[in-house]
Amino acid sequence: MELYNRQQIQDVVKLDHAALDAVEAGFRALGEGNVVQPPILSMAIEESNGEVDVKTAHIRGNSRFAIKVSPGFFDNPKLGLPSLNGLMIVFSAKTGLVEAVLFDEGYLTDIRTALAGAIAAKHLSRADSRRVTVLGAGLQAELQVAALRLVRDIETLDVWARDVAKAEAYAARMQEAYGLTVAVHTDLGEACREADIIVTTTPSRSPLLSGEHLREGVHITAMGSDSPDKRELDSSVMERADHFVADTRAQSEHNGELKAYAGHAAPFTITELGAVIASGSRLRTAGSQITVCDLTGTGVQDTAIAGFALGRLAG
Amino acid sequence: MELYNRQQIQDVVKLDHAALDAVEAGFRALGEGNVVQPPILSMAIEESNGEVDVKTAHIRGNSRFAIKVSPGFFDNPKLGLPSLNGLMIVFSAKTGLVEAVLFDEGYLTDIRTALAGAIAAKHLSRADSRRVTVLGAGLQAELQVAALRLVRDIETLDVWARDVAKAEAYAARMQEAYGLTVAVHTDLGEACREADIIVTTTPSRSPLLSGEHLREGVHITAMGSDSPDKRELDSSVMERADHFVADTRAQSEHNGELKAYAGHAAPFTITELGAVIASGSRLRTAGSQITVCDLTGTGVQDTAIAGFALGRLAG
Repeated sequence: MELYNRQQIQDVVKLDHAALDAVEAGFRALGEGNVVQPPILSMAIEESNGEVDVKTAHIRGNSRFAIKVSPGFFDNPKLGLPSLNGLMIVFSAKTGLVEAVLFDEGYLTDIRTALAGAIAAKHLSRADSRRVTVLGAGLQAELQVAALRLVRDIETLDVWARDVAKAEAYAARMQEAYGLTVAVHTDLGEACREADIIVTTTPSRSPLLSGEHLREGVHITAMGSDSPDKRELDSSVMERADHFVADTRAQSEHNGELKAYAGHAAPFTITELGAVIASGSRLRTAGSQITVCDLTGTGVQDTAIAGFALGRLAG
Repeated sequence: MELYNRQQIQDVVKLDHAALDAVEAGFRALGEGNVVQPPILSMAIEESNGEVDVKTAHIRGNSRFAIKVSPGFFDNPKLGLPSLNGLMIVFSAKTGLVEAVLFDEGYLTDIRTALAGAIAAKHLSRADSRRVTVLGAGLQAELQVAALRLVRDIETLDVWARDVAKAEAYAARMQEAYGLTVAVHTDLGEACREADIIVTTTPSRSPLLSGEHLREGVHITAMGSDSPDKRELDSSVMERADHFVADTRAQSEHNGELKAYAGHAAPFTITELGAVIASGSRLRTAGSQITVCDLTGTGVQDTAIAGFALGRLAG
């Protein structure tokens, strides 16, 4: 049994094509029905404004599976500590013995979440997408764009965030790091006007983006909402879109953008991302169509990235 | 963050009154409504005849909580490995940071499971109980009796098991280790005829014990069934008993002896063990009454024993 810390993991797992392929293979297996993925275990620690989530999945035939434990304690910044944390435990799928504990402190979650955004854009956005709008200016606002560059030739970035100072700092970082042309917007509609791809990365509790903000041909990835109290997309986004995709429908109804439709029929077709990948054909059939993908974060991504990481660490 | 192995944990956590008090306090908090305890996360790895369960609970106001991961891979003995395994991760309930990983390999589960049997007998069995019948001859058959000795003056032991050779070996061990008078039975009814306390510890998939096996005044603890496919008690046991207690009703309906009554009213009253403890009064009001307790294993026991263990290890 081996232990690895965040630095060791960061040294070998990056936002690259190999990691993308590993996570995409996980989604494909999910779409092929070859994954056991139980519902998320979630527990609130109310007196500390905290929660802990446990996610897992097993890809049938794989030699390993992972269990991820993610605590989120949202008063931690007042103590000088990060809100998010966590570790992944990698087990042999043959014997159940622990092969490794990855004390990644949430790093692998950041990576697999960004890669899911790239995978969604790869399968759903127009191939000639060059201009990205990001809502939010946190860590995922950066990583989502970095991951998108693996699949699309991104040149221009528009950013909107509630905190303009954060948006300005984000813009400077992105210009410096990736040589992108970046514009900061105080009007959300203005920010989205020219977008080929919109990525929403906020912890908003009420819809930010609505159907009227969308131009023809745009793809939207909504990755901010991951709990019952969050939501970024107005129903008009889904209802205007030509294709709506969720990483998993059940999680999207519980934690994501399908909350408004949970328990009754939605007035649009819901496809899962794994099924799109497994089908081998594109949902988008015209450059003018609008596509939406809601990402809530799945256990199969964790098992996929943990297996990939351990392969590199132990190999 | 500290790591502790099985030997270190075994050195400081034993079947004693202090450990019993810790687990009992967990049940009491559950009965008082001061525990957050989400449903068990369970995943099957069918191609390896394996499963993995994740249990957790938080006792409000406690400084720590634990998450336990328990793999069970039932072909492991063919490979010379134990079927059961696992670890507990102890988190700060203030920050969500990992305080320790207890690589106990299932040891703390064994202990807290045995202690739950003693706690059930303490609150439900006759105070003058001296004769115990055990069904099964595995590890819990031994630990349940060892734990009962903390709360009752056990003198005589009757054992029944499907494998007579195992029952004989068990009898010899128990005589040697605890100075008990032990009798091996090939007839289950004979084994139960004189029992003050019956403990069922088997992985049976069909009921073994029925109402006709019970004498007046007996207490039964059923701790073998912990999954949807197992069951040790015939419905006639519950229907003949004066008091039926479950560690948690929802788990008993899913994994334990209440499966036959899940989703509709049972023809008897169901009380939870924590509520019995929290009430401070005895359910049993006469020596002739029959009491039954179904134990499926709860997250609060894991949080309680992990906190107790870490207190000793770090203290």
